[in-house]
Amino acid sequence: MSLAPWRSAIAQALHQNRTLPYARYLQLATVRVNGLPANRTIVFRGFLPETNQLKFITDSRSEKAEQIQHQPWGEVCWYFPKTREQFRINGGLTLVESDDSQPDLASARISTWQELSDAARLQFNWPHPGKPRNKNEQAAFSPPPPDRDRPLVNFCLLLLEPLQVDHLELRGEPQNRIFYYRDDQKAWSVTEINP
Amino acid sequence: MSLAPWRSAIAQALHQNRTLPYARYLQLATVRVNGLPANRTIVFRGFLPETNQLKFITDSRSEKAEQIQHQPWGEVCWYFPKTREQFRINGGLTLVESDDSQPDLASARISTWQELSDAARLQFNWPHPGKPRNKNEQAAFSPPPPDRDRPLVNFCLLLLEPLQVDHLELRGEPQNRIFYYRDDQKAWSVTEINP
Repeated sequence: MSLAPWRSAIAQALHQNRTLPYARYLQLATVRVNGLPANRTIVFRGFLPETNQLKFITDSRSEKAEQIQHQPWGEVCWYFPKTREQFRINGGLTLVESDDSQPDLASARISTWQELSDAARLQFNWPHPGKPRNKNEQAAFSPPPPDRDRPLVNFCLLLLEPLQVDHLELRGEPQNRIFYYRDDQKAWSVTEINP
Repeated sequence: MSLAPWRSAIAQALHQNRTLPYARYLQLATVRVNGLPANRTIVFRGFLPETNQLKFITDSRSEKAEQIQHQPWGEVCWYFPKTREQFRINGGLTLVESDDSQPDLASARISTWQELSDAARLQFNWPHPGKPRNKNEQAAFSPPPPDRDRPLVNFCLLLLEPLQVDHLELRGEPQNRIFYYRDDQKAWSVTEINP
């Protein structure tokens, strides 16, 4: 496996924006079961080792888990404020659930869980996201901390395998925009396009 | 017309994040003609007067204009870094093109054009977005400035009429999340839900 040609641009953007914690936040668009678009902020958790796949996490009880099972395709939009550049990345999504039978994915799910903060792990023990809130059950949001080595059953690893990457730099004169596309032979082509 | 109940929360977030120019940037998800999701950063241009509709601009030559004509529905995801809150807003999209026959929309298109900076107006005179770049034609990106009072034919006003607003505050203990929904009688209901 070799690094895709857009990886260095992402690495550079992450480095140059490293003082902003929210530079690791991006927006994931999926399609709802009714065919309409959905969009939400998620946190970039690095790349899956030896691949070009972006790692995220999600809760199997969330709407996006259902959407991804129905249509396993997504487009993330990643804006870096300090360097004023945007990456639009689309490709196939893989939801790695607790019963995944592929050993390497099951193992990646566990190691991603172990790398989370205690606060992040705790959220998977919270009440069902999106359901009406019961204000008499505040204690439900202070559950016992889950085991660091055994992911809760609703914890999912989410992977995005990029097929297209559209990189726009607003700072250029006028602007620069590069389009990366992976062909059927899994080779990447690179084209400069109009902003 | 009365302000929707989520308007005050948006106004407060805009005020509290006003020192960050990119707090007016948000991500719009649409659905491509092939049924897959698309996502990109756009700039909030205020509300259409006397409505709850969010204003944006776009170029009729862009892919999103085609997508919206095919499926006039969108979901924006708006993250405010300083206050650590997110608004997910979905609803119908209206693309107001140069030949729009509704006088109030045609007029709003012109006034939005007039309010743009010279640099923003100039971009509508640039070569076709997304086409291969011709590096020998750099002059094409320094076109004559368009008339401030006559929008170029490819300039579009884009309106989002919210149907659902999902407001998540990450700073709460644990977090707060409010869901606003507009019913068939155009009345807004407000529900607290689990984050």
